[in-house]
Amino acid sequence: MIKVGIIGATGYAGNEIVRLLLGHSGVQIEFLASQSFEGQNYSDIYGNFFELIDMKCSAPELEKLADSVDVIFTATPQGYLSGVLAEGILEKCRFIDLSADYRIKDVATYEKWYKIEHRSPELIEEAVYGLSEINREKIHGARLLANPGCFTTCSILTAYPLVAEGLIDPDSLVINALSGVSGAGRGAKVANLFSEVNESVKAYGVTTHRHTPEIEEQLGYACGKAIRVSFTPHLIPMHRGIYATETATLTEGATADKISQAYEKYYGKEFFIRLLGQGRVPESRFTEGSNFTDIGFKVDERVGRVVLMGTLDNLVKGAAGQAVQNMNIMFGFDEREGLKAIPMVP
Amino acid sequence: MIKVGIIGATGYAGNEIVRLLLGHSGVQIEFLASQSFEGQNYSDIYGNFFELIDMKCSAPELEKLADSVDVIFTATPQGYLSGVLAEGILEKCRFIDLSADYRIKDVATYEKWYKIEHRSPELIEEAVYGLSEINREKIHGARLLANPGCFTTCSILTAYPLVAEGLIDPDSLVINALSGVSGAGRGAKVANLFSEVNESVKAYGVTTHRHTPEIEEQLGYACGKAIRVSFTPHLIPMHRGIYATETATLTEGATADKISQAYEKYYGKEFFIRLLGQGRVPESRFTEGSNFTDIGFKVDERVGRVVLMGTLDNLVKGAAGQAVQNMNIMFGFDEREGLKAIPMVP
Amino acid sequence: MIKVGIIGATGYAGNEIVRLLLGHSGVQIEFLASQSFEGQNYSDIYGNFFELIDMKCSAPELEKLADSVDVIFTATPQGYLSGVLAEGILEKCRFIDLSADYRIKDVATYEKWYKIEHRSPELIEEAVYGLSEINREKIHGARLLANPGCFTTCSILTAYPLVAEGLIDPDSLVINALSGVSGAGRGAKVANLFSEVNESVKAYGVTTHRHTPEIEEQLGYACGKAIRVSFTPHLIPMHRGIYATETATLTEGATADKISQAYEKYYGKEFFIRLLGQGRVPESRFTEGSNFTDIGFKVDERVGRVVLMGTLDNLVKGAAGQAVQNMNIMFGFDEREGLKAIPMVP
Amino acid sequence: MIKVGIIGATGYAGNEIVRLLLGHSGVQIEFLASQSFEGQNYSDIYGNFFELIDMKCSAPELEKLADSVDVIFTATPQGYLSGVLAEGILEKCRFIDLSADYRIKDVATYEKWYKIEHRSPELIEEAVYGLSEINREKIHGARLLANPGCFTTCSILTAYPLVAEGLIDPDSLVINALSGVSGAGRGAKVANLFSEVNESVKAYGVTTHRHTPEIEEQLGYACGKAIRVSFTPHLIPMHRGIYATETATLTEGATADKISQAYEKYYGKEFFIRLLGQGRVPESRFTEGSNFTDIGFKVDERVGRVVLMGTLDNLVKGAAGQAVQNMNIMFGFDEREGLKAIPMVP
Repeated sequence: MIKVGIIGATGYAGNEIVRLLLGHSGVQIEFLASQSFEGQNYSDIYGNFFELIDMKCSAPELEKLADSVDVIFTATPQGYLSGVLAEGILEKCRFIDLSADYRIKDVATYEKWYKIEHRSPELIEEAVYGLSEINREKIHGARLLANPGCFTTCSILTAYPLVAEGLIDPDSLVINALSGVSGAGRGAKVANLFSEVNESVKAYGVTTHRHTPEIEEQLGYACGKAIRVSFTPHLIPMHRGIYATETATLTEGATADKISQAYEKYYGKEFFIRLLGQGRVPESRFTEGSNFTDIGFKVDERVGRVVLMGTLDNLVKGAAGQAVQNMNIMFGFDEREGLKAIPMVP
Repeated sequence: MIKVGIIGATGYAGNEIVRLLLGHSGVQIEFLASQSFEGQNYSDIYGNFFELIDMKCSAPELEKLADSVDVIFTATPQGYLSGVLAEGILEKCRFIDLSADYRIKDVATYEKWYKIEHRSPELIEEAVYGLSEINREKIHGARLLANPGCFTTCSILTAYPLVAEGLIDPDSLVINALSGVSGAGRGAKVANLFSEVNESVKAYGVTTHRHTPEIEEQLGYACGKAIRVSFTPHLIPMHRGIYATETATLTEGATADKISQAYEKYYGKEFFIRLLGQGRVPESRFTEGSNFTDIGFKVDERVGRVVLMGTLDNLVKGAAGQAVQNMNIMFGFDEREGLKAIPMVP
Repeated sequence: MIKVGIIGATGYAGNEIVRLLLGHSGVQIEFLASQSFEGQNYSDIYGNFFELIDMKCSAPELEKLADSVDVIFTATPQGYLSGVLAEGILEKCRFIDLSADYRIKDVATYEKWYKIEHRSPELIEEAVYGLSEINREKIHGARLLANPGCFTTCSILTAYPLVAEGLIDPDSLVINALSGVSGAGRGAKVANLFSEVNESVKAYGVTTHRHTPEIEEQLGYACGKAIRVSFTPHLIPMHRGIYATETATLTEGATADKISQAYEKYYGKEFFIRLLGQGRVPESRFTEGSNFTDIGFKVDERVGRVVLMGTLDNLVKGAAGQAVQNMNIMFGFDEREGLKAIPMVP
Repeated sequence: MIKVGIIGATGYAGNEIVRLLLGHSGVQIEFLASQSFEGQNYSDIYGNFFELIDMKCSAPELEKLADSVDVIFTATPQGYLSGVLAEGILEKCRFIDLSADYRIKDVATYEKWYKIEHRSPELIEEAVYGLSEINREKIHGARLLANPGCFTTCSILTAYPLVAEGLIDPDSLVINALSGVSGAGRGAKVANLFSEVNESVKAYGVTTHRHTPEIEEQLGYACGKAIRVSFTPHLIPMHRGIYATETATLTEGATADKISQAYEKYYGKEFFIRLLGQGRVPESRFTEGSNFTDIGFKVDERVGRVVLMGTLDNLVKGAAGQAVQNMNIMFGFDEREGLKAIPMVP
C-alpha cells in the first residue's frame, strides 16, 4: 500500500485521478490539495463523491506534503511545478506531473511555445516522458514523470509505429484532432459556457498549439531525426474524447499489410492499445471512461497516402488514466490495476 | 462462481448487464442471446467490448439455454418472457426479468396498461418485485425476479419513506419525471434519431404511461391502501439519467426534521441510496455510471407541500445495476460486487 | 421608422433583440450599450453579426442615450433600471425592460423575493406588465413596459384561460418547468460550463424561484383572488426552450371540451399562441427561433386532474421576441413585424 | 410570383426548403410530394409548421406535377431523379436537384463512386453545377440545376481562390471535414439514434466518400487540370454545420497577403461569403440558420503550409439555402430573397 497525494485535485483531471485511485487496491489517498478550494469539502465540489470521500481540500504546501506520501500527482497549470520543485523535494517523494513543465527536453522550445520562463531547467534532463507503452523501461525508475498531454498521447501513439518503421514520410503528417470540452478545464471562462460551445465546432490554436513540439519531439525520436508536422485541434460539443485523424504520404513499398505488421510489432501485446486494423474506423464513445486507445487506418492508394485514426478518453488515457498507469509501472503494480473499467456506452 | 446468461443482450440494458458482469468476480457469462443479431460477434455491435469479449450472439432458445446456467437475465420486450416461461423452465434456473411482465400482481391491470394478454399468469404470484432496498428479504429466495423499471425505481424510492410514515398525502402526489434517451431503447425509430431528440424536450405517455400502476402498487403497499398518482414523464436530450420531482401535500405535523428521520429510518444504512437532506438538490450527473440513487427534498411551508427530488442512472440502478444487485442478493454475493463504479464526472 | 437603442446588448437576450430588430422594417438601431464591452466591436463579440453590424458598444449613459431614441430596451441585471430610471428620463423615451424591476406591483413582495431594495418604487404603478396577449390594450399606451420572464410567460399563458374560467383549482397548481441553458445568461460561471451542464439535469431555486410571485400575481388577476402555486424549475442540457408541465385539480363539471373552449375563447385569434388541443403534446423544438407558444393538454379522469403543457423559446417569446411584439403594439406596427421566423427544425 | 413544388419534402433538406420558401415573397408552394408520407398532413410530420401550412403530402408523380409549376425542387435519394427525368418533362418546368445525380460530368466516375447505374446520362451535359458564387452566369439560364452537396460546397468554396490563383499545390490538399448529424438524413437507422451519436465522434467514408470526385472536379476546373485530394469526413454530435479544415502546401512566393487578395478577388463582393482573413477562426454556430459561408485561414511558415477553414450550415448553404439562392438566380429574383435570416446564437 503506497501513500499518494494530489495537487490540483479540483480540476477535471484531478477529479479523475481521485475517481481512479478510489478503485485501486494498492493506494491510500493522503491529501487533496487545491489553491482555489482550500478548506472546502471535496464532495461539495464534486457531488459524485458524496459519502465516498470525506476529506477537505488542503493547501498546496509542496515541501510539507512531500513528506507525507510516496508520490504526488500534480494536475496543475503550466509553470506551477517547475516553479516550486527542487532536488530536495524530489528526494522525499516521486512526482507525476500532468502539466507540460517537464515534457520537452529543449528549454528554449518550451519557453517559445508556452511563453513561460522555466524555473527549474536543471530537472528536465532526468524527467521521463510518460508515454507508457513507448517508455515503459525508463518510467519504472523515474522520480519525476512528465505525463503526456491528451492530444499528444493520441497523436503520437497513432503514428509512432509507421514513423519508426519508415512507412510514411513524417514531414508529410497532417494531424487534425478533435477534443471534447472537458479538455478545456474547469475555469470560469465565457468561451467554455454551454451556450457558447454546444451545437458548434471551431478550430483553435491553429499553427501555434503547444502540443505541436511535444508531438514532433517524440515522433522525432521514433525516426531518429527532427521532424515538423501540421497539427490543427478543434473543439467539439461533447464531454470527453480525443480523435486524431492523421494523413501522411506513404513511402515507397508501404502497404496495408506492412502497416498492420508495424502496429502489431509495437502494440500487439499492449492491453490498452486496441488495433482495429485496415478499414475499421474507431469511434470515441467506444473508449469513454476507459484507458484504451483505439487505432484504425485506411490506405488510400489513389492518392498514395494513408489515413490513420486514433481515439481515446482525454481524461483517462489522455491524462489521469495514463498517470495511474505510469504510477503502476513506477511502483511495480499490475499495470491494469485501477484501470479495468470497460468503456461505457451509451 | 455462478454461470449466467443474457437474453436480449444487444439492447442498451443488455449491454449494460454485460459491462457490469465483466467486472464481477463471481460470475461467468455463458451466452449472449439476441433475436436480431444471432450469429454476429457481440463486439462488432458494441465496439466498447472489442478484445474484451469474444462471443457470438446465440439464438434465444430458452429451454436449452436454461440448462446451462444458474440465472438468466431477460432484457427483452414486454410479453416475451411471459410468453415462453413455464414451471418446467423455472425449475432449471432462476430468472431476473427486466421487462414488466411479472411486476404487477393484478393481471387485469397489467393487460389494461400494457395492452398485451399475459400468457403465464400462474407465475405472477411467486414473482418477487426486485426493489432491492425494500424487498431484500423476499429477493433472497426468489426464483423469478421482476426487476423494476427506471422511472418506477426512482419514483418509488424517492417517496416511499414519506408515504410509509404518513408524512404526505399519497393521493396528492404529482410526479414529473425526466428521462435520458437511452431509456427509449435501441430500436431504429425516427422519433429517437439525434436530429429529432437533441435540443428539444417533450412530455410523453401523458396520463397513460405504463409505469404508473407499478408506482401506485408499490407505494400502496407502503401505506396499506390503494392510491392514485399523477405521473408525467418527459424525454430530455442526454444519454442517461432519470430525474423525478415529486410534489405532495404535507400531512398535519409533518416537518423537514420528520422527513429527514423517515428517510434515515428506511435508507440510513443503504449504500446505494444517498440522502442529500433538506435543501441540497440532486443532479443526475452525480449518479452517472453508478448504482446510486440520490435523494433530496425541500419543504415549502408557504404552500404546505414538500418537493422531493430523486435521481439515478436509468441503465444502472434503473435497469442493469439493480438487476445485478438483485442477483447478488439472490446468490449471496456481497451486494456491492460488480457495482463499485464511482459516478463519472463530467 | 423609429429609433431604438439597447442597453445590455451583449447578453443573450440583448443579442436576440438585435437579431430580431435587424429583420424589422420599421426600426433603426441607434446604439448598443454594454457595461462590460464598451468600445468593442459588437460583431467581435457575436460573430454571427460579422459584416451585418458595424457598431461599437457604447457606455450605458442612460440620460444621454434617452435623448437619441424613441424606445430603449434594457436587457440588464435586476436592479439596474430601477436604480437609474426617473420621471425625467421617461419623458424623453419609452422603455421596455426585460428585467423584473417593474413586473411586481407590490414592492415588499419584489424586495422579499429578489433581495434588492427597489430604488424607484414610484414608477411601478404606471408600469404595464407586457404579457402581450393578455394586456394588449394597456401595452399600447405604455411608457414603461415590464417585459415578462421566460418561465412566467410560459407558465401563465398555459394556465390562464383555465384559471380565468374556473375550470381548475388555482391553489392546486403544481408547475414543473424545464429551461434550456441560455436562460442562465452569459456570465462566466463554473456552474454554466458545458462540462458541468451537459448530460445532466437538476432542479434549482426549489420553493424560492423568483418567478413564483410573478406567476401568482398574474394568475391571481385571472381569477380575482390571491393564489399560491408550487413552481419547480429545472435546468436541462439544451440551448433554448422553456417547457412547463402544469398539473391541477379539475373543478366540478370541468371537461376536456370546456377546456378547449376556454383556450379558444382567450387565444383562438392569437397568431403567436398555437393550441394543440387535447392529447397532442408540444415539443420545444417546434417553437425554436420563433415567437410561438404551443399549448396542449390532457384530462386525467382517473385522478380528477388535468395536465397542461406549454412550451416556447425562452429567448424569443420568453424575452426578446415578446419585447419586440410589445414594441410593435406600443408603436402601432403590425404585431408580427420582425417576428415572422418559422421555427427551425432540426 | 412563380409556382414551385417540392419532391422529397419530408426529409430534412425538404423541410428546410419549405421553411425558406414560406419567407420568400415571390413564390407559391403548389405541392409537397413524399413517397413515404403520401396523404399525411405536412404539419403532423413537422410540428414547426402547425397552423402555418395546411397541405397534405402528395404522391411524387413527376409528369403530372411538372405541369403545375415553374420549378421543382427534388430533395430525393441518389438515383431518383435520373431514373424518372426526361426531355419531355424538362420542357414543362425547371428542376433544382439536391441529389448528386447530375453533379458529375463523367458518367463512369458517377457510377464508380455511387455504385448506381445512371439512367439519363444524356441530360448530364446540360445540367449546371449550382455553386452559386462560381457559376452564377450559367445558373441563370439553367433548366436542370445540380445543387452541390454540403461537404462539397464548403470544401470547394474554401479552397477555390487559392487553387485558381496557384497559391497552393492542389494535389497536396488534405481536407478534414466535420458534419452535424442532420446531414445523415431522417431515415430510421440505428446508427443515427441519439444514443449512438451523441457524445461521440467518428470518421466515415474514409477514402471512399462520394463527395470526393465532386470536389476534385470543381477544383480541377479552377486550376485547369485533373487533381486528387484526400477527403476525410467525420460525424460530430450537433444538429447543423459543416466545418472543413484544409491543409495544403504553399507554392513558391505564396504569402498571407496574396491569399487575402485571392479571396478578395473571388468573393469580395459576395454577400453570402464572409472573409474572416488571416488568423480569425470561423465557428460553425456563427452561420447556423443562415446562408453564409465563413472562411478564415492561417499561414504556417514553419512547415510551408496554409490551413484553410470554412464553415456553413449544411441544411442552408449546404442544401436548401443554396437551392433557393439558385432559384433566385434562375428566375431573376434578388439573390438574397428568402435568405435574409441572421445566424441564430446560441
